[in-house]
Amino acid sequence: MGAVKSKRMPRAVREQQMLDAAVQTFGQRGYMAASMDEIAELAGVSKPLVYLYLNSKEDLFIACIRREAKALVEAVRAGARPVLPADRQLWAGLTAFFTHTARHPDGWAVLHLQARTHGEVFAAEVAAMRADIVTFVTELILAAAREALPQALGCSPKLSTSLEQGGPPRAGGTPTDPHLPGGEVAGLAEALVGAAEALADWANSTPGVTARQASATLMNFAWAGLGDLMAGRPWSPPDGEGPDTGSGADMEDAGAGAVVHAGRTSPAR
Amino acid sequence: MGAVKSKRMPRAVREQQMLDAAVQTFGQRGYMAASMDEIAELAGVSKPLVYLYLNSKEDLFIACIRREAKALVEAVRAGARPVLPADRQLWAGLTAFFTHTARHPDGWAVLHLQARTHGEVFAAEVAAMRADIVTFVTELILAAAREALPQALGCSPKLSTSLEQGGPPRAGGTPTDPHLPGGEVAGLAEALVGAAEALADWANSTPGVTARQASATLMNFAWAGLGDLMAGRPWSPPDGEGPDTGSGADMEDAGAGAVVHAGRTSPAR
Repeated sequence: MGAVKSKRMPRAVREQQMLDAAVQTFGQRGYMAASMDEIAELAGVSKPLVYLYLNSKEDLFIACIRREAKALVEAVRAGARPVLPADRQLWAGLTAFFTHTARHPDGWAVLHLQARTHGEVFAAEVAAMRADIVTFVTELILAAAREALPQALGCSPKLSTSLEQGGPPRAGGTPTDPHLPGGEVAGLAEALVGAAEALADWANSTPGVTARQASATLMNFAWAGLGDLMAGRPWSPPDGEGPDTGSGADMEDAGAGAVVHAGRTSPAR
Repeated sequence: MGAVKSKRMPRAVREQQMLDAAVQTFGQRGYMAASMDEIAELAGVSKPLVYLYLNSKEDLFIACIRREAKALVEAVRAGARPVLPADRQLWAGLTAFFTHTARHPDGWAVLHLQARTHGEVFAAEVAAMRADIVTFVTELILAAAREALPQALGCSPKLSTSLEQGGPPRAGGTPTDPHLPGGEVAGLAEALVGAAEALADWANSTPGVTARQASATLMNFAWAGLGDLMAGRPWSPPDGEGPDTGSGADMEDAGAGAVVHAGRTSPAR
């Protein structure tokens, strides 16, 4: 279908349509079960055209991984707000992440399930993206730690500025914050990313769990900690605004005005 | 080699030797690169004997996954100490987990890397184990939440007793702790397990990071939370004993007498 129509499209547009169809098919049916026939039909093009553009099923899958990885990393980076206090930055980053994975469940399935299940070549593609995100999170935690203790460290919080400008972290080697040394920060970043991955899988596979709830759960876990949660002290933003009981569908400005209370953010079941 | 010697062994012993060799080979060389020749030689038996006992490379790999999954789950369950306060329970469970993954890096690589990278059949085996652990962690968090608020809930902390006895969680449906409702607890368990998986990968692939350090990092992250860490308030056990700067090799009683301070538990680098 659509052969005449598709001839009028620029190559880049048609290729994106093929990738859209491929991500949907790989994400929902799995890499092995997905067929090139199915993907071509969903994209509204002929199978030979898919091969002409993307070469093979393997190359098409890799193109999907790369596109979805780039989109996810960009969404998380765009969500970071270095001008905010550390807890608000984390909340903004988490909501950006879970909003993206909730809106692109097939893309997330390609990245976190399919790509890692079907061979080392695909797994390596995802590992590279994951390393990017861990580095980014490490920088954010370091920046937050420095801001928390500028006097104790005798330095001003400059790292957040370099992040704001999209630049690399400051040169000068391993930071020596007495509370959060480099090795500890690297471990914390791994823990945070691992927790976020697990929660994205859980949110996307559990009916009724919204992006907002997943963000709130991880915010409470990562910022307040189980200790404070057990004592009935979830995280809440410093401005003390009232609870936002939105459904999670509208999270563009989720960093503002949210009160994340465990008792309010969990699905009723 | 060892044909005469191996004939004297009972089948069960010889099979364990084959599995030992297979876990080591799969874990270190990867599922695809590992050969049955190599595994047979390492086990000191003939290749036909490996096929006779374990049938095929796929079946051998599944036997490895099941053995390593069982050992890991048993180690974590054995590490749990329901008589302790919630934070000490978590510390005991985390040290049990990271001690096991540090001592059995090939087993962990089989479970968390190889099994998930080489097809849906293997991935499903690991997913079953993971679900067991998430359920167990969910029960522990629920028990801790109930203990933290027995008066508010009007019930005594019985769940820890049923866990102590190895029994299932109490019947009676979803708990209704106002601070930690069921959906929130399920999410917290997912976050904790995801963070632990990521940290085990990180600890096993980062020179100088011990099981103790991984446990300490996750304890600080999960219990104290980033908020308290930023403010220089890491978790420490209630008995206030001095810092234990042990190397992590001797963690049998890691639940006792440990002070987990971020500044002390990170590798010097």
